[in-house]
Amino acid sequence: MAVNADYTERITRAQVHLQELGIDLMLVTPSADLRYLIGYNAIPLERITALAISPHKAPFLVVPRLEISTAKASPFGELGWEVRGWGENDNPYELIRTSAGFDRGKIAVDNHMWAERVLKIQENFVGATIELAAPIIGAIRIIKTPTELDSLREAAAAIDRVHAQVPNLLRVGRTEREVGRDIADLIVAEGHSRVDFVIVASGPNGASPHHELSERPIQAGDPVVVDIGGTMPSGYCSDCTRTYSMGDPGSAYRERYAVLQQAQQCSTDAVHHGAISHDIDAAGRNELAEHDLAEFFIHRTGHGIGLETHEEPYVGENNPTVIENNMVFSIEPGFYIEGVHGARIEDIVICTPDGPESINQQTRDLVVIEI
Amino acid sequence: MAVNADYTERITRAQVHLQELGIDLMLVTPSADLRYLIGYNAIPLERITALAISPHKAPFLVVPRLEISTAKASPFGELGWEVRGWGENDNPYELIRTSAGFDRGKIAVDNHMWAERVLKIQENFVGATIELAAPIIGAIRIIKTPTELDSLREAAAAIDRVHAQVPNLLRVGRTEREVGRDIADLIVAEGHSRVDFVIVASGPNGASPHHELSERPIQAGDPVVVDIGGTMPSGYCSDCTRTYSMGDPGSAYRERYAVLQQAQQCSTDAVHHGAISHDIDAAGRNELAEHDLAEFFIHRTGHGIGLETHEEPYVGENNPTVIENNMVFSIEPGFYIEGVHGARIEDIVICTPDGPESINQQTRDLVVIEI
Repeated sequence: MAVNADYTERITRAQVHLQELGIDLMLVTPSADLRYLIGYNAIPLERITALAISPHKAPFLVVPRLEISTAKASPFGELGWEVRGWGENDNPYELIRTSAGFDRGKIAVDNHMWAERVLKIQENFVGATIELAAPIIGAIRIIKTPTELDSLREAAAAIDRVHAQVPNLLRVGRTEREVGRDIADLIVAEGHSRVDFVIVASGPNGASPHHELSERPIQAGDPVVVDIGGTMPSGYCSDCTRTYSMGDPGSAYRERYAVLQQAQQCSTDAVHHGAISHDIDAAGRNELAEHDLAEFFIHRTGHGIGLETHEEPYVGENNPTVIENNMVFSIEPGFYIEGVHGARIEDIVICTPDGPESINQQTRDLVVIEI
Repeated sequence: MAVNADYTERITRAQVHLQELGIDLMLVTPSADLRYLIGYNAIPLERITALAISPHKAPFLVVPRLEISTAKASPFGELGWEVRGWGENDNPYELIRTSAGFDRGKIAVDNHMWAERVLKIQENFVGATIELAAPIIGAIRIIKTPTELDSLREAAAAIDRVHAQVPNLLRVGRTEREVGRDIADLIVAEGHSRVDFVIVASGPNGASPHHELSERPIQAGDPVVVDIGGTMPSGYCSDCTRTYSMGDPGSAYRERYAVLQQAQQCSTDAVHHGAISHDIDAAGRNELAEHDLAEFFIHRTGHGIGLETHEEPYVGENNPTVIENNMVFSIEPGFYIEGVHGARIEDIVICTPDGPESINQQTRDLVVIEI
């Protein structure tokens, strides 16, 4: 877990970015951004909670009056900054505006702030122009601290333990939904506090990357794509895909899978400090192209991961992001042949000074289940 | 579960509202609103999914290309309208604009749309003014259908079964967190697909309405406020508060609790078709005031519930909403005495032609645990 010094450093760095970008006020509502900046994991509800950060003043937190104690019990309560409560008959936007001493200028809002709040800010902060907080908060979140890397390794180990047990759950005749329910239980049993998603895509359903659990019974010869993840008590997420097959999936599939495995390795090998996102994507995509599989790889190679399953940096075609040490993201090429089958192999990879570190360690080979 | 005819009716009613309000296009991203309108329970991720509804044209759904199959497998796939996929290198906003044939005018966005999307719409739809979709979708969602009422009754019965087991979990010396973990397991065991919140607020922590689970061991004489809820496979939510005590909490507490119980009954009795939200709140608040407890009732009386735990209609002071048959909301007065103790009693209530129907049926008496 982050300690108080981490939070004060994050706030200070955000203030430096605000100064550099000429932004007068940043407002952050309950979200991964808020949890990252002050450790307050507030539930997003209809009464607004907002962290207000100005470039040259102490930050403060505005919360519904009935949540003052809850907010003060969070790490923010120990940082020495003010918590201001608003009552059921108050206008919280007016409270924010006057507390911040805001007159006119630029306001940055967290990227996931609700539309109803964005429009209220436009209404209550006359003379303000609104922009997104991503260039400020995202720029800090994208580089993980040693503590965050450990939290992500811990999450990866937990989801690996689930994958280790998946072969026990896959049986011909069981439905995707039945298997998915068991996997969800294991995700929690292995230490996650929340299940975020469970994809069990059997046979032709494997051709849909974000397939939802269905009543389809798993059949002999089916490849089964299993993409699963959850959130740990630390707030950090896991996400790992392995592909299984119910007995022999046939030589055509085995050959394609071997190419995919090679492609996944090529993209992983391309990870280093200074690499361009596009090039990491291209390394695997070119490998698939050489075996006429590129047209079936219909998505980007990966996404960053941290307090959210999907965050910066993204890894994909035409993406100019420069990868740096301590960025963490998935490498997950796949092939999707409609009506036939699909496959995906996904690891979470840390860019380290020594090159790529795959933190998911279950075998990337096709796991053939005896039937 | 809603059937296809429900969804087409909801879309048609939304189109009527669009015409009445002179809105040219409504965009709905993954949210309870989207699930309500077309049954698609899409996960909110960084690639935009949006339902586009114009007043006089067929609606269509824009989704990332890799989620086309998933979208078509949802109820929307059976409604006969178009699903348009966008690729990793496309601009989805441009696709929406051209597909809708939008030139200039008013665009309504779902209230929880992310800021990054609202700003993208402002950027890509030049000449558009943005407003909220609440007057369109909220106006439909606020009145529950018979099927929705049954789903809410089913959710209430599930959380009642959890409360029935809470006395077995409360023991002097157990921490709030230990009890909370057991309650979370029971919420799932009793039929919810997801735990939404678990409040176990013991002794002085009861004075914080949205208290988070702490390491405080429960003590003899403590009142314990237990406010819990989850989401059922139907998508509909439960939410119920009961207050327990570890042996005798003392006469002062018992007297206050009796007043609270009476106040909760007064607000419930005030529910009828045509009642004003403010008056339902006042009925209980006045009862508390007569016993000098009104100053300790620091929040509104209740909130609507459906596909979200908190939605319209809200029940509170100065709220002019006219309550109608088949609206569903909580009645949950409480008292919160800082540093001392607190209490809350919460039922979900349906406004029926015969008056209020409390769908939570565990006793509202203070449940005294033998110690």
